[in-house]
Amino acid sequence: MINGVLKSPLKIVSLNDGNVMHAMKNKDQGYTQFGEAYFSIINSGAIKGWKRHKKMVCNFIVPRGKIKVVIYEEKEKVFEEFIMSPENYFRLTIPTNLWVGFQGIHAEPSLLLNIASIEHDTKEADVKDLELLEYDWAKK
Amino acid sequence: MINGVLKSPLKIVSLNDGNVMHAMKNKDQGYTQFGEAYFSIINSGAIKGWKRHKKMVCNFIVPRGKIKVVIYEEKEKVFEEFIMSPENYFRLTIPTNLWVGFQGIHAEPSLLLNIASIEHDTKEADVKDLELLEYDWAKK
Repeated sequence: MINGVLKSPLKIVSLNDGNVMHAMKNKDQGYTQFGEAYFSIINSGAIKGWKRHKKMVCNFIVPRGKIKVVIYEEKEKVFEEFIMSPENYFRLTIPTNLWVGFQGIHAEPSLLLNIASIEHDTKEADVKDLELLEYDWAKK
Repeated sequence: MINGVLKSPLKIVSLNDGNVMHAMKNKDQGYTQFGEAYFSIINSGAIKGWKRHKKMVCNFIVPRGKIKVVIYEEKEKVFEEFIMSPENYFRLTIPTNLWVGFQGIHAEPSLLLNIASIEHDTKEADVKDLELLEYDWAKK
């Protein structure tokens, strides 16, 4: 596991009228402070990446669909992959200074919630074209 | 509008790979502190309610489906309704001491995110059977 990346199992409470799905509590590991929460939809087959945050700690949660999240650690040249969905439900905490990309791998659009430690700010994030890191998004 | 209830328009950023949908920033009106974030799924036609929080300030956001949220103020005996969906996208801040119920009014399950000021705690919430408040959930 890449240093500082944290995979925290999340509870789903089964209810007849519709389940309750936990996301994050202020006492949880991975919580530092609340800056912003936003959704990122990812269409089937689409890829968003690469992005590297200098200040933002991300907490990803996937309540709908299925998403492959790929994290790249530049010094050790290590990729790490996570498949996130309601069927495999956990929170992924991503510390600063790692490259992150993600792909929709569900037939319908998938939904990612990011509970971020700071507000969105383009100045604190580096971006890199998808092809500039050698990762095979097509592999299963 | 019932005193303290706040309807805040939210931005959706259109992107080819999937939109970004704002939810909440720490500087936003309605934000007090971060206690917990959780999802509540509501099935088509199903109703969850009534619940009244004594301490929790709720911030409801609906990134998928369509939900009717009904708020009841007991002293003035006033009901107020809100239709929430990605097509009518806003955040609903609900202060303490109001009765709240909501209904899935989309063909598929709808998704509600609550960014709550405190952690879930059954002791701080009153519940009341659906039929104990005279509200006609069947009306359009």
